[in-house]
Amino acid sequence: MKPANAFYAQSGGVTAVINASACGVIETARKHKTRIGKVYAGRNGIIGALTEDLIDTSKEPAKAIAALKHTPGGAFGSCRYKLKGLEENRVQYERLIEVFRAHDIAYFFYNGGNDSADTCYKVSQLSQKLNYPVLCVQVPKTVDNDLAVTDNCPGFGSVAKYVATSMREAAFDVESMAKTSTKIFVMEVMGRHAGWITAAVGLAADRDNDIPLALLFPEVAFDEAGFLAKVDALVKSHGYCCIGVSEGLRTADGKFFSESGLKDAFGHSQLGGAGELIAKLVREKLGHKYHWALADYLQRSARHIASRTDLDQSYAVGKAAVEYALKGMNAVMPAIRRVSQKPYRWKLEPAPLSQVANAEKMMPRDFISADGLQITEKCRAYLAPLVQGEAPPPFRNGLPDYVRLKNAPVRKKLPEFKI
Amino acid sequence: MKPANAFYAQSGGVTAVINASACGVIETARKHKTRIGKVYAGRNGIIGALTEDLIDTSKEPAKAIAALKHTPGGAFGSCRYKLKGLEENRVQYERLIEVFRAHDIAYFFYNGGNDSADTCYKVSQLSQKLNYPVLCVQVPKTVDNDLAVTDNCPGFGSVAKYVATSMREAAFDVESMAKTSTKIFVMEVMGRHAGWITAAVGLAADRDNDIPLALLFPEVAFDEAGFLAKVDALVKSHGYCCIGVSEGLRTADGKFFSESGLKDAFGHSQLGGAGELIAKLVREKLGHKYHWALADYLQRSARHIASRTDLDQSYAVGKAAVEYALKGMNAVMPAIRRVSQKPYRWKLEPAPLSQVANAEKMMPRDFISADGLQITEKCRAYLAPLVQGEAPPPFRNGLPDYVRLKNAPVRKKLPEFKI
Repeated sequence: MKPANAFYAQSGGVTAVINASACGVIETARKHKTRIGKVYAGRNGIIGALTEDLIDTSKEPAKAIAALKHTPGGAFGSCRYKLKGLEENRVQYERLIEVFRAHDIAYFFYNGGNDSADTCYKVSQLSQKLNYPVLCVQVPKTVDNDLAVTDNCPGFGSVAKYVATSMREAAFDVESMAKTSTKIFVMEVMGRHAGWITAAVGLAADRDNDIPLALLFPEVAFDEAGFLAKVDALVKSHGYCCIGVSEGLRTADGKFFSESGLKDAFGHSQLGGAGELIAKLVREKLGHKYHWALADYLQRSARHIASRTDLDQSYAVGKAAVEYALKGMNAVMPAIRRVSQKPYRWKLEPAPLSQVANAEKMMPRDFISADGLQITEKCRAYLAPLVQGEAPPPFRNGLPDYVRLKNAPVRKKLPEFKI
Repeated sequence: MKPANAFYAQSGGVTAVINASACGVIETARKHKTRIGKVYAGRNGIIGALTEDLIDTSKEPAKAIAALKHTPGGAFGSCRYKLKGLEENRVQYERLIEVFRAHDIAYFFYNGGNDSADTCYKVSQLSQKLNYPVLCVQVPKTVDNDLAVTDNCPGFGSVAKYVATSMREAAFDVESMAKTSTKIFVMEVMGRHAGWITAAVGLAADRDNDIPLALLFPEVAFDEAGFLAKVDALVKSHGYCCIGVSEGLRTADGKFFSESGLKDAFGHSQLGGAGELIAKLVREKLGHKYHWALADYLQRSARHIASRTDLDQSYAVGKAAVEYALKGMNAVMPAIRRVSQKPYRWKLEPAPLSQVANAEKMMPRDFISADGLQITEKCRAYLAPLVQGEAPPPFRNGLPDYVRLKNAPVRKKLPEFKI
């Protein structure tokens, strides 16, 4: 009897290491050929399953699959497409099962964050109801680091390493210029709801790197007076100040700071400019020249400065997902548990998707200093291991040598389905 | 007889590798102790000389000086302070000579770009007139790559490697998201007058990396219709488009594109937002979702992804500057000459400062494609060797381990001088 196939899809914003999870899934499945036939990937995520647009990963040589470990982005395409609740949207869930049935898919590996955990959980429920058994395992991924149960999220450590490195480097630059020119450097980072990435900027400074930092977290309502007093004090003591700003910074009335009244050339409210607005505020109120940077996608695609720890964990969750499924586990996610802090040791444990779906892990208040503008030692201790270790990609002609897969399509068997 | 001392200063915007030039100067001087006594550095550049605020680099251990090779920013501080013409500003030039005389300084190494070459040249002229001989050697440095005579400028290759790597990584990200979300990615880069850094973004795409790129150079007046047609065509053929925009992009009437009418929250004209404005224009006219990044200081401080070629050249120009001075050469700059293209070989040759000062090297028109939106093969051939080779810094606790010097002051001997 031919072994059943597996389906793997990438969901939501991609990361520098989500392909390492794909690699973990595919390489592990290939080691169990008597149990798992082919791994089909969804072209552009779950949309690929809905539209029966499947990629036959068995057409890729082992070398190309191995190269996923050092290639950023989502090799099969991802999507922002959230399936709604089962009752409102039963036809879509049923379509998924229909596609799985048509292609003899008995394993569903969904690589994503909160929303994907929810979808993965619902598919597992429906597959029981429809009497077509599919083992559903979530492969965790999110730069936002806001998944429940797991100690940290694959994808976050590399962003953390990037933003901390970038801020440290920029600080060395600004410090040189501060006497006659730029005194303020602002970097806006991702994380609309949770301040984990903003906190990671705090790693730029440490015992050996005395860098004057102010951080603006989405969890802490913006206090203009307190913030300006801090910046003023740091410029007086150090000659300059570096500011990390979350794109999700909010004012006391709960509105996004970036929405505070600015219109763009077309008359739209200006969004996503919290960093620039903060820089301008400092110039207006304290009179200092500023520079500001918006890392945007650079921070989450910077495979060249990925964290080795993050890379190892990203591969491991892909591998564990397949191993869980082979043990018959369903509706679970490999969660990272911190076994020891010094030396840092971690292991994976299955977490029920019911606990992961629709939960969000915010920064604990004791990770943020009393003035709301820095990280605490407790936060530093949590973050430090996650950026450990380097894992540079191979370079060719002076630039990272990333892989593009062939992404050969699987022949369709079903009528078209409009989404 | 005690050997005369040397003065070294960093000028203008710093780079990821300007400290490697400082290292080249100091290590080479230390090898010639019978000829050069101490190397004094100007605290915050030439201001340190004017105010007699000198740093005694002999207090730094060899290990700390060696660590300059992997540390970004300006280790002694830099400044934006251009000395005016000799006639208008004779008192400042005379003060420089007075400080040099007081500290027995017979060698002046000035690490900077066009303006510094001019200052260095004028000091050499005045020292002759005032009959206090100082050998003046410019150590070239500028991320803008716009110095005359030299084939390329130390500092540029590392920025080029950073922007090309970053755009390639972001392209892999955007390509994954394009089906349902972001189709346009814009990165704004430095280079207000010359498009060398914008051109380097073009290296992100090559024979093996088919990335749809449109580049907006400061040398090419913005043609909205042609640009939008290109972006539209690339989105149709590839599903997405990546756009590199110079901060110095200009409209047909010669104005900065970023000044085109937008006011900020304080009613000031908004500057420095060429990238964001381009992104919004594409959304408005073609309807695509965008992301945009502003690399700002990150691009010029990114020592973690420096070019080995750039690093080697930066060290070499510092070393050569000292060797030229020891040969009695005056008012010169070590210029890089490209000896062979394949394999890339280069050597240093002294260039007269009279030819370097007040000249600016723009991108040749045949480095830009006929439509003004891409680089030519000729440009690619010029740029390719400059990003070759990796030279990662040491890492400690997962982050680059950069050095901060003690920067011990030299005792002042002269009355105060107001600048």
